[in-house]
Amino acid sequence: MACANKGKATLNLEPLFNPQSIAIIGCSQDPKRLSGLPLHYMQRHKYGGKIYPVNPKYQEIAGLKCYPSISAVPQPVDVALMLIPAAAIAGVLAECIAAGTKAAIIISSGFAELGPQGRAAQEQIAALALEANMPVLGPNCQGVINLVKGIPLSFTSALDAPSLRTGGLALVSQSGAVGSFTLAAAHEAGIGFSYWATTGNEASLNAETVAQYLLRQDDVSGVLLYLEEAKDPQGLAAAGQLAREVGKPLIGLKVGRYGAGKRAAMSHTGSLAGSDEEYTAAFKKAGIVRAAHIEEMFDLGLVLSDAIKPRGKRVAIVTITGGGGILAADRCEEVGLEVPLLDAETQAQLKKIVPPFGAVANPVDVTAELIASPGLLKETLKIIIASPSVDSIIIFLGMQERIGTSLAEDIAAMAKVAKAAGKPILVSWMAPPQGAVEVLRAARVPLIFDVVRTINALSHLLVKPEKEAERWPSTDPWGGKGPFAKKELRSLLLKLSGATDGEKERLTLTEAAGKEFFARLGLPVPRGQVARTAAEALKIAAKIGYPLVAKVDSPDILHKSDAGAVRLNLQSAPDVERAFGEIMANSRSYAPDARVNGVLLEEMVAGDPLQTIVGLKWSEKFGSLIMFGTGGIFVELLKDFSLHLAPVTQAQALGMVEELTTAKLFTGFRGSAPRDLQALAQTIVTISHVGAALGQDLLELDINPLFVLPEGEGVVVGDALIVLRGK
Amino acid sequence: MACANKGKATLNLEPLFNPQSIAIIGCSQDPKRLSGLPLHYMQRHKYGGKIYPVNPKYQEIAGLKCYPSISAVPQPVDVALMLIPAAAIAGVLAECIAAGTKAAIIISSGFAELGPQGRAAQEQIAALALEANMPVLGPNCQGVINLVKGIPLSFTSALDAPSLRTGGLALVSQSGAVGSFTLAAAHEAGIGFSYWATTGNEASLNAETVAQYLLRQDDVSGVLLYLEEAKDPQGLAAAGQLAREVGKPLIGLKVGRYGAGKRAAMSHTGSLAGSDEEYTAAFKKAGIVRAAHIEEMFDLGLVLSDAIKPRGKRVAIVTITGGGGILAADRCEEVGLEVPLLDAETQAQLKKIVPPFGAVANPVDVTAELIASPGLLKETLKIIIASPSVDSIIIFLGMQERIGTSLAEDIAAMAKVAKAAGKPILVSWMAPPQGAVEVLRAARVPLIFDVVRTINALSHLLVKPEKEAERWPSTDPWGGKGPFAKKELRSLLLKLSGATDGEKERLTLTEAAGKEFFARLGLPVPRGQVARTAAEALKIAAKIGYPLVAKVDSPDILHKSDAGAVRLNLQSAPDVERAFGEIMANSRSYAPDARVNGVLLEEMVAGDPLQTIVGLKWSEKFGSLIMFGTGGIFVELLKDFSLHLAPVTQAQALGMVEELTTAKLFTGFRGSAPRDLQALAQTIVTISHVGAALGQDLLELDINPLFVLPEGEGVVVGDALIVLRGK
Repeated sequence: MACANKGKATLNLEPLFNPQSIAIIGCSQDPKRLSGLPLHYMQRHKYGGKIYPVNPKYQEIAGLKCYPSISAVPQPVDVALMLIPAAAIAGVLAECIAAGTKAAIIISSGFAELGPQGRAAQEQIAALALEANMPVLGPNCQGVINLVKGIPLSFTSALDAPSLRTGGLALVSQSGAVGSFTLAAAHEAGIGFSYWATTGNEASLNAETVAQYLLRQDDVSGVLLYLEEAKDPQGLAAAGQLAREVGKPLIGLKVGRYGAGKRAAMSHTGSLAGSDEEYTAAFKKAGIVRAAHIEEMFDLGLVLSDAIKPRGKRVAIVTITGGGGILAADRCEEVGLEVPLLDAETQAQLKKIVPPFGAVANPVDVTAELIASPGLLKETLKIIIASPSVDSIIIFLGMQERIGTSLAEDIAAMAKVAKAAGKPILVSWMAPPQGAVEVLRAARVPLIFDVVRTINALSHLLVKPEKEAERWPSTDPWGGKGPFAKKELRSLLLKLSGATDGEKERLTLTEAAGKEFFARLGLPVPRGQVARTAAEALKIAAKIGYPLVAKVDSPDILHKSDAGAVRLNLQSAPDVERAFGEIMANSRSYAPDARVNGVLLEEMVAGDPLQTIVGLKWSEKFGSLIMFGTGGIFVELLKDFSLHLAPVTQAQALGMVEELTTAKLFTGFRGSAPRDLQALAQTIVTISHVGAALGQDLLELDINPLFVLPEGEGVVVGDALIVLRGK
Repeated sequence: MACANKGKATLNLEPLFNPQSIAIIGCSQDPKRLSGLPLHYMQRHKYGGKIYPVNPKYQEIAGLKCYPSISAVPQPVDVALMLIPAAAIAGVLAECIAAGTKAAIIISSGFAELGPQGRAAQEQIAALALEANMPVLGPNCQGVINLVKGIPLSFTSALDAPSLRTGGLALVSQSGAVGSFTLAAAHEAGIGFSYWATTGNEASLNAETVAQYLLRQDDVSGVLLYLEEAKDPQGLAAAGQLAREVGKPLIGLKVGRYGAGKRAAMSHTGSLAGSDEEYTAAFKKAGIVRAAHIEEMFDLGLVLSDAIKPRGKRVAIVTITGGGGILAADRCEEVGLEVPLLDAETQAQLKKIVPPFGAVANPVDVTAELIASPGLLKETLKIIIASPSVDSIIIFLGMQERIGTSLAEDIAAMAKVAKAAGKPILVSWMAPPQGAVEVLRAARVPLIFDVVRTINALSHLLVKPEKEAERWPSTDPWGGKGPFAKKELRSLLLKLSGATDGEKERLTLTEAAGKEFFARLGLPVPRGQVARTAAEALKIAAKIGYPLVAKVDSPDILHKSDAGAVRLNLQSAPDVERAFGEIMANSRSYAPDARVNGVLLEEMVAGDPLQTIVGLKWSEKFGSLIMFGTGGIFVELLKDFSLHLAPVTQAQALGMVEELTTAKLFTGFRGSAPRDLQALAQTIVTISHVGAALGQDLLELDINPLFVLPEGEGVVVGDALIVLRGK
């Protein structure tokens, strides 16, 4: 498993984010050039610490003494901001280390993004940083901004803004440009940040480590993390865990979901779940909230930082327009929130203050009367906050240039009351006056201009991760904490495969051997036996009883139906005899070189079985993953499956069933019996522990189908595919 | 069917939208009051026509002579803007008519929104307008703005903007407040409108009629229509038809989708499709593009007005940041667009100008080098427009305060070249400089700030309705153009029901009678016959042959399985005898009072049948609707069905199958045979004509299941439910 950040836990990022002194290496005299901009911005935003421009060409820049080299600077600086060409970086970085510089930011590009040669130069940086135990950001990044203290270590033109807007969110972005655009767009929406960091090529310091540092800062209410690739999965897990420990949200936007080309695989699990699903599973397990795009990242950041989690799904909508109320109610129901009729008592109280052409049932429409009656919105909110039929409140407004600020002040006051009552208030305000934006942002009342986005964010708030939530188990699958020991599982599988270790790269178990393995783990398998001859088949049939199922038993024929080597519902001895002959003949003609052990005869599973699929997938980044889906057509046609990091608990396994689109099939749908969910979940747990124990030694594992019987009747392994890594 | 707008086709709306003279009735001297604002805005925006304030209290307002009444105004005015209390409206409106006023806008509230009393007052307005054949807008609306000529007939504070931003889109909103907020939000996004109209309570003039007027105006590039309820379905159809005739998009946002309480119904069709699905079907048929929310309404309006339809799904992404390119590519693939590798020739040409640390494969990343190299973006676009592997182009940018305007000019120039080459260019620009916004809006290059919204809009562009698209057939289902005559179908059904006309409200056909009906229409039904005695059953069985299906035949037992009155796969005479006895006994105990004709014996459908469901639904607004879905668990669990206005053509019926999530099941999925799509579509067409012919005389009609056999083997009606309106 990749682990790029060894030893970084002890790194002190303070000089990077809160430097008392800065050296600008390669500083230009021209404030319009990229290498002149950082100094320009530091002066513009009145950085209070020491600035040392470094450039052998100049004596002075913008009123500051300029030094020929970092060695010439009279004191060790906290951070060196490096703007010199790529070829000079390694030498100057070594010089910085020698001069006692505590941290470095390499803005310069020309490294791994150029290919192999650049990669070597980048590795040199990494080695220097590691050796000196120095935080080094970049190369090819846009630097860092501490907005709280006004310390701009960047050339981003987002710094052209006359003042730095501050707020609780911090942003860490692997992409400099996306980070810049996001900062500028946030500024326009009146959203301020506390810290802003771009990590670029991540030669040494990565986004996961920076996110952890930022989560620990008092000024930070939540962290937005823009990822193209998680270079440090352990760091990601640690960041997620830390976020929950400190009770701050960590919102992840992972791009590059598509076109990643899924690895060809025999198993369904292998072919269904791509690398994007791995990230979804990892984020879920780590308690990192996944945003689908930049706007959602903002919205979730605001709402999860500043709003409390509602107790339930019942939303009251307060508006000044009937149409807006309907619009909001539509969206609430669309995302699974409820817009209940308010209780009679609340309605009666509202009727006393809301004009007769308004509405009090929910949505509550106080009408444009609000303009003439100061206090109407505040009184309305007071009544609704006290209502027992409400868990959260959406306020939908538009414009109101004249009274916007005072409306916002009323909302801010009532948001406090609502918070005390355990109910969040979210504001959707189309084309709001600037004054209202300032008031609401300052009061940390979540404000989103677009009503659909507001309600989407509210729906996420319902699943806000809790401080006490479960932690991500070690991503090291052979941590040895599960019920299974890797060594024993492996030798059992080797024995059942009939092979010796190291013989082949892929050791495939026959169905009978796979079922034997699962039976040893305590999973129910059908009674069955392999017959080598027709006569043996008849004897076995008589022993098991009818009806029977017959399938070829061969490690080399995995798609048994395609081979014409499966017969269902055999009712009599002649049926068995004929089936044996046909299966052997078909198998030989389908795969003349296949090793065929004979025909597996099994009792047919009775009791209206529901087909499901349970499997394992190995991820280079996140270790073993457990997959569960409704089988047959559903998993194929609808991609209806759930994927989690292994191992999972019984409760998590039940949650995996609930996540499915077809979840209703398990609780008794249209007259069919409710399924044995406990036995199903227990099976998922067991398989997940197999995955956690064996890790990448398991190349494929699928139970497809796993039959799930009616409640109390358990499950049955219908088919088994296991491929073990041999050497 | 509702038809509120009788005779309005001949109404002249010119005096409403382009008045040469305006009377402001109830004009206040206080420019801050609602009744003072319209005059204030007319003067502020320099209305060039005549203004006549009318108010008996004043001699003069804001430098204009004020008249005591409309009769005192020296000439007939084009439009009277009425701001007086509701109680006075009817009298003054009559006075206006007498004075020769050509149109009226009633801003005043206090009508139907107050209940029965207000409704009567509103009907009085409607009667006056109808009698005078005068366009009357409102009451309870926010009026009209002609932004092209600067004529504000409204009090909306969106008019506080220093200048009216103009553009090609027109907005018609039933909600005044939502209309205002939308206008203000559009202004902030740099989007101008040509006309803006709010229709309020629609006593007389409705949004559908206004939309038609606006579509005909040369200044209008497309119409946005915000609806809470379509009061004039025929007008909606006509607007959709007109939109396609004039080649302008009509974008509909219909709110109030949820909580409308679906009517309890016996049939699946009746219970599955609610009123919102009716609107979706009606919009589709009319060629009205349905927007899900306000922002999407803008985006679609811009893109469908100003961009040409791409020839295919292949998108080139041009960006200045790798991260942005990935973000855009993700979303493209998510919505079904393709981001192909560019052809070698195009890549080779791009390599000559794009820096080596950029990318030329697609996404094309020209990097921040763009800032230093004027013309780089333009050259890049030129090469990509000429590429044979590209159908459309997304440009993803952010900020660029310094060079934004010139970049925008380059883009505008290349957008023209691209248009000539049949390829649309859409621009996504985060936090764009104002100059760039102005340039792109003026050049009518679609610009959306958010990349996800841009790509969503592009995906809609692929299905942009064409001028030549099919028209909405008459919503009058008894137009008599289908193959069936209503009278004959009705008397056939009456006869088969064994009832006489007018006997009962609901006449339910037995399954056998329903199948007889479908057989007469030429649909294949299983061979079968009703047996009244066990002896008769045996005779029928011998005649049909085994295996057989047996079900009770009764007009009073619709849920036959629940009654234990279905037996499948009968193999022999004893099977038949036993089944007959059990079915008769179970039916008697399930429903002692039911009329039981006997047991229907049918051949069992062979050939791996796929279960589907075809049904009809009656809509008060839109007439008869045809529904098709994949049967069994799919329609129940996934709500996987398609709904269209009846009748449909063979091609439309095939389209209904393609719309399903489970469409793949019909074309041969996982080794199962492809289905007989032509026979299936023919059946859907036939049933749709039954719906169109019988209209609301059919209370319920379901074929559930309709078995669809492999290609060339046709379909079979598995069960039939028909309920006819008796009296």
